[in-house]
Amino acid sequence: MSIMGGMNITQRAREAREASRKILSVSAESRSSALNSVRLALINRSEEIFAANKIDMDRSTAEGLAPPMLKRLKFDEIKLNRVCEGIRSLELAEDPMGRVLEQRELDKGLILSRVSGPIGVIGMIFESRPDALIQIATLCLRSGNAVILKGGSEALETNRILTRVIAEAASGEKLPSGGQPDGWIQLAETREEVREMLILNHLIDLLIPRGSNEFVARIMRDSSIPVLGHADGICHVYLDKDADPEKAVPIVLDSKMQYVAVCNAAETLLVHSAAAETLLPLIHDSLTAAGCELRGCDRTQKIIEVKTALPEDWDTEYLDAILSIKIVDTLDEAVAHIHRHGSGHTEAIITENGESAEAFMARVDAADVFHNCSTRFADGFVFGLGAEVGISTSKIHARGPVGVEGLLSYRWQLRGSGQVIRDYNDGLKTFTHKEL
Amino acid sequence: MSIMGGMNITQRAREAREASRKILSVSAESRSSALNSVRLALINRSEEIFAANKIDMDRSTAEGLAPPMLKRLKFDEIKLNRVCEGIRSLELAEDPMGRVLEQRELDKGLILSRVSGPIGVIGMIFESRPDALIQIATLCLRSGNAVILKGGSEALETNRILTRVIAEAASGEKLPSGGQPDGWIQLAETREEVREMLILNHLIDLLIPRGSNEFVARIMRDSSIPVLGHADGICHVYLDKDADPEKAVPIVLDSKMQYVAVCNAAETLLVHSAAAETLLPLIHDSLTAAGCELRGCDRTQKIIEVKTALPEDWDTEYLDAILSIKIVDTLDEAVAHIHRHGSGHTEAIITENGESAEAFMARVDAADVFHNCSTRFADGFVFGLGAEVGISTSKIHARGPVGVEGLLSYRWQLRGSGQVIRDYNDGLKTFTHKEL
Repeated sequence: MSIMGGMNITQRAREAREASRKILSVSAESRSSALNSVRLALINRSEEIFAANKIDMDRSTAEGLAPPMLKRLKFDEIKLNRVCEGIRSLELAEDPMGRVLEQRELDKGLILSRVSGPIGVIGMIFESRPDALIQIATLCLRSGNAVILKGGSEALETNRILTRVIAEAASGEKLPSGGQPDGWIQLAETREEVREMLILNHLIDLLIPRGSNEFVARIMRDSSIPVLGHADGICHVYLDKDADPEKAVPIVLDSKMQYVAVCNAAETLLVHSAAAETLLPLIHDSLTAAGCELRGCDRTQKIIEVKTALPEDWDTEYLDAILSIKIVDTLDEAVAHIHRHGSGHTEAIITENGESAEAFMARVDAADVFHNCSTRFADGFVFGLGAEVGISTSKIHARGPVGVEGLLSYRWQLRGSGQVIRDYNDGLKTFTHKEL
Repeated sequence: MSIMGGMNITQRAREAREASRKILSVSAESRSSALNSVRLALINRSEEIFAANKIDMDRSTAEGLAPPMLKRLKFDEIKLNRVCEGIRSLELAEDPMGRVLEQRELDKGLILSRVSGPIGVIGMIFESRPDALIQIATLCLRSGNAVILKGGSEALETNRILTRVIAEAASGEKLPSGGQPDGWIQLAETREEVREMLILNHLIDLLIPRGSNEFVARIMRDSSIPVLGHADGICHVYLDKDADPEKAVPIVLDSKMQYVAVCNAAETLLVHSAAAETLLPLIHDSLTAAGCELRGCDRTQKIIEVKTALPEDWDTEYLDAILSIKIVDTLDEAVAHIHRHGSGHTEAIITENGESAEAFMARVDAADVFHNCSTRFADGFVFGLGAEVGISTSKIHARGPVGVEGLLSYRWQLRGSGQVIRDYNDGLKTFTHKEL
């Protein structure tokens, strides 16, 4: 078992690539029992894990890490139980590999199948939460992928012991059914290693970075490996002229204030001019009472008391209790503002007019387009996707909240009985192309 | 109408991006009638097109372009008819936009739909064939994408007139149903423009390069825009110990020699040692009779007369009438060789042993894995996908032969009636997550 031990990141990625190929002959039952074994090992070895976490907590406290970050770093009984519940549901879940996605007879005795399979090697770069490491590792295990994990340096000791526990518990040595091939889970520990990972196109198939916008944007820019993720989350709520105030006010409050530090929180409110006089005072009272700072355009300032929104406000993801407000004269203008300043994440219209709603939902080019509900619903668990791998603002492969499907690819299998293309080109045979 | 006229490629890409958003409110009928109008315009203006093509042909002939390239450059009545047939089938095809891919009740009055839609702006860089321009442009039209086309410089005049004819015919000015927004089709003409395109991440969503392996590999390496395509196509045929000679010989001949210059032709033959004495002489006679040069490993040279295969032979896509041959002792060794030297394109096993066949098909990590048929079947038309956008060796988004599906993405639409996330977090409401 070689998790760390001297190898550089390229060698470890090569090990992961080799493991990813061996996984192709591991059975679904074996993956289920490996998950079971991982869950039990996490429980059995929890004291060891908590002790490592204490080292990280003590060091980070001494270094003055901010309290919200310390809270994320902490790995305790409650977080352990929560991730174990997640693993339990993965144990019971249908194996996503080997599903026949489509099947077609090309000719008599020549059958084409498109079959689901893993992507291969996933490079996951995430923030300080150690529970994220467990979620990601077990999702990769279930979906047949090998994984290279890079967690926050604050969580170094916790990440090391977690990786070791998972690798040992899933390994073939302990499991009658065979278990996972060695090397399927790898830990990267330094930023230098992350930089090296970005150019390993032949060894890493997909990068999933989580973290600050700047960090994710840099990875998207610097790597030619496909990236699943999102940088900015500049989401808008548009209050149409036919918005119902009884819906509009609570939705704006929820979209902005329910949790300000997340990517699906609203940053800008667009209000139709015909409804501004009615709606803005209500919005003002509700949001200021909740402690939100408002910044408005010229026209907004004539209706309610707000600070001045500067041009950069429309392009800012505050991740804080601040909302910028702009009055628009048409739905077209709202859509144009969203396309100019949004990040293609989540956009909502509030209206009782079905036509306006459908026009907005058809025309806004974003991963999630919502009608009469909070932007905060943009989430894999809420969408019913099970565990969330991430939220993607790319339009390739997966868009919006991404569940385990985002870790899957497919292969084409063609089963013949001696056919050659020449016969079809020469007109001796013709394709039947019959769906099965 | 601004197809070329003075704008640099960034400005034109921005125009394409704006058009791609306007397309979201264009109807399926409008796209069908635009396709119809394009087809008629190509026929009506064929003299103009052939005249432009003559300029390209004359210049290229004078410059000494190789005859096979001249053949590809030539755009005549036959090629026109063929592309028009293709457009006709796109006119009649079901519109791929707006299909509900899944639908789920999250709670009463809160309905989630995943709906197909275009990717946005496609950057297509292709070789000299002018008919490819028409195919790609009309596929993008059908799938609601804007497109930036860069064809071979030999075809400059032909590409200009084709782009103009297509843009004018699809334009709203001529069609009662509205037609395409201006700017949806753009032509890039220089290599400098291609270099600039590679960094326009915010304006181009997907690059589809066709051309030499070196060219495609460079684009994959140099751009952080997702790329659909393939560089090398090093495909193998593996003759198992239980291969039927009656199938093996014609399949090897077809895989190698039916058309040597294509990516799905075989480059290396792997033969199980237990069958080598029987099969290799038959392979030798059949392939040398067809004009194929054979290069073999040490053990192969003891059985048949062949040149020596050097280590680099196993990593070479000949695209020529040359086949390298290696003897292996097990299926495992064949799979390992394929993983080490293959390009994840198309791999075939020839055997009468069902277990060996299924082991090979399960374990080989390639876009296409075939049993008892020629590698030359790896093709979008053969697979019944309709028009082929390209063949992808990436595992992200689309793998293997890619039809119009490869030009599609999706959006999540959520239709509510005033819901806020707070109620669910506070336990006042719970999600129903009912599939619809």
